Amino acid sequence: MSHNGFMISEMAKRVRDILSMFVLAIFSKVIGTKLYSRRSAPAEPESEANVCLSWRLAVEANNMPGWSTVPLHCLSHVETYMMGGQYEQDVNYIVEQIESYVSQVVLKGDGCDAWILDIDDTCISNLFYYKDKNYGCDPFDPGGFVAWVMKGECPAIPAILGLFTKLVEGGFKVFLLTGRDQQTLAPATIANLHNQGFIGYHRVIFRNQSFKGESAVAFKSEVRKQLVEEGYRIWGNVGDQWTDLQGECLGNRTFKIPNPMYCVP
Amino acid sequence: MSHNGFMISEMAKRVRDILSMFVLAIFSKVIGTKLYSRRSAPAEPESEANVCLSWRLAVEANNMPGWSTVPLHCLSHVETYMMGGQYEQDVNYIVEQIESYVSQVVLKGDGCDAWILDIDDTCISNLFYYKDKNYGCDPFDPGGFVAWVMKGECPAIPAILGLFTKLVEGGFKVFLLTGRDQQTLAPATIANLHNQGFIGYHRVIFRNQSFKGESAVAFKSEVRKQLVEEGYRIWGNVGDQWTDLQGECLGNRTFKIPNPMYCVP
Repeated sequence: MSHNGFMISEMAKRVRDILSMFVLAIFSKVIGTKLYSRRSAPAEPESEANVCLSWRLAVEANNMPGWSTVPLHCLSHVETYMMGGQYEQDVNYIVEQIESYVSQVVLKGDGCDAWILDIDDTCISNLFYYKDKNYGCDPFDPGGFVAWVMKGECPAIPAILGLFTKLVEGGFKVFLLTGRDQQTLAPATIANLHNQGFIGYHRVIFRNQSFKGESAVAFKSEVRKQLVEEGYRIWGNVGDQWTDLQGECLGNRTFKIPNPMYCVP
Repeated sequence: MSHNGFMISEMAKRVRDILSMFVLAIFSKVIGTKLYSRRSAPAEPESEANVCLSWRLAVEANNMPGWSTVPLHCLSHVETYMMGGQYEQDVNYIVEQIESYVSQVVLKGDGCDAWILDIDDTCISNLFYYKDKNYGCDPFDPGGFVAWVMKGECPAIPAILGLFTKLVEGGFKVFLLTGRDQQTLAPATIANLHNQGFIGYHRVIFRNQSFKGESAVAFKSEVRKQLVEEGYRIWGNVGDQWTDLQGECLGNRTFKIPNPMYCVP
């Protein structure tokens, strides 16, 4: 074999090897996601991603109330979800649905048309905090979270800020309802909301001394009940936790913003 | 340039082209799913898959009550989800959660420990029917659906059949509660349940004449209320529709089985 002949043969072999690798990789991807797996056939080995998709769906459909931390094997799934664009797109999609509903609401215009927004991971994001807590795989660290909140550096969630602005300009009385402690966290929270553009809300309602120790559902239900007794009509209620959207006086429509990083029981 | 030299050069060029294509394809995949997209950066073009993931999440988190048909651009997404194994895995995962809950329930054993299961796409599957209806992209066809039900050929959803058997053997009184019309569909439904192994339930409750025209929530709430008045404790309630899991006397825990093909308002 000539020198050139050898080179061609060697190169052809390498090309074959590289292409086989690609073809195999692509084929296994197709097998894993596209082919029809008959119900009666033995189950294919479950990939971590698929298991974590099931976990996240169960969380978002409220099948796992009170879950504690993100399973460690789902760390990279949650990271990819939160940082790779899908979380942002999911939030944007829900906000589109909310705005479509808002556009159909006929306000009475007596100053009693109300809307409720949760604060943490609804209006402003704790993603940068949870990034350093393995996206929720680490157990909740109350001291660390307070220190983070005191910084007042939670960025706005852009789509929700847009919704907020439309609600305020549209004549809704917007109530921001949060489990954050009034005594310690109110000033930093109010400053944070202001520096992120949440301006023009009607009231921020914190968890004060009288609600200490109550569950999120009990506390938020009680506050909403008081608002209804004051004469407010709650047209909508938006939160990232199912406990924002359960209990009494929920409002005419509720909307769940995704949050696979933590659960407030 | 010699003939061989030309061949080598041509081959090298082809290899370069092919590899560039693969590298580009893989790079764009990585960009689309992995890299951190800064919130302030302009949005990347949304792929159909990502948009349909957002749509499906919104459906499963009950952000779109009363949605009518699957958006046509999500046909292949829903097909892949239902047929490719992820649906089955999601159901299995939820059933694991249910069984974990069941194992903690301490039955009173007075014959009043009850459990409620919906029938369509909870116990038995209409997937093969919806396959021919573009996985729910086509509008609901009442006549076609009745004809399908009359065949009595809905296969069991394996994980739910397993759960059913455990519940019955564990001493629960299992009630199958369905919006199917009693007058026309009861015999075919009972035969179908039997041929799929759903044997030993306490009662199947159909929608009879007195509930005609009532919403699913009103009908199912009324039935559950009657059961509670009869003295039953509803430990759990499982359905593929949010309207199975809303209203009164819901039970101690509710579980939502995924269904991206249709919505019962």
